[in-house]
Amino acid sequence: MIQQIDHLGIAVRNLDESIEYYEKALGLHCHGKEEVASQKVKTAFFEAGDVHIELLEPTSEDSPIAKFLEKNGEGIHHIAFRTDDIEGQLKHAQDSGVRVIHEVPFEGAANKMVAFLHPKSTHGVLTEFCMEKK
Amino acid sequence: MIQQIDHLGIAVRNLDESIEYYEKALGLHCHGKEEVASQKVKTAFFEAGDVHIELLEPTSEDSPIAKFLEKNGEGIHHIAFRTDDIEGQLKHAQDSGVRVIHEVPFEGAANKMVAFLHPKSTHGVLTEFCMEKK
Repeated sequence: MIQQIDHLGIAVRNLDESIEYYEKALGLHCHGKEEVASQKVKTAFFEAGDVHIELLEPTSEDSPIAKFLEKNGEGIHHIAFRTDDIEGQLKHAQDSGVRVIHEVPFEGAANKMVAFLHPKSTHGVLTEFCMEKK
Repeated sequence: MIQQIDHLGIAVRNLDESIEYYEKALGLHCHGKEEVASQKVKTAFFEAGDVHIELLEPTSEDSPIAKFLEKNGEGIHHIAFRTDDIEGQLKHAQDSGVRVIHEVPFEGAANKMVAFLHPKSTHGVLTEFCMEKK
């Protein structure tokens, strides 16, 4: 079951400049940074209520975020739903006709298992399921 | 002060088809629909934790959502932060150098006062402040 929105991923060109915007203009607090080698990004985390905002700067030209920036410019990249059963959630989506990017969850940032649905079958929204690692 | 993410606005071409996706594939529940004449959209609301997802279908070709769809296709249109002081929040953002779309809040959906920051000064994210009407 989907429990809540876990985080929003936002693609940015320069992490430090974007952190400054979120801190100064919105008054949010950056509570951590992390490099995710598997996705070739460095990230910064903010909290707004119990939802995280995850800024994503590519660390390589072949990062998925670099490709997103090239095509779309900066902006919201994905929405992540927290679930207590990521495999069941993925299977349910597939049974409903949704195309998935990852059939098997993999290790994402912040000690979570994650998997993505393809935006072509989610009405344009790159959609992530994530679950705390047991 | 920003209290939490209030909702995400997602631009869709067909409200009913998108409602079906969110209900069937994700298992979320549509808890209301509303037409917002001022924005020329009809909306459907879902809840994920304490954040709303607001699907937006244009009702006219000159709706801001129609223009977004033409340029970008379906996808996440904006992020709305709930504040307890929308005028103070707007002023603070402007004092930090942010360009605003609305200097004065106006009446949005769901009985809220709303105002938007310009994505050119928010690193690509169309950003809304919203506050319950007093």
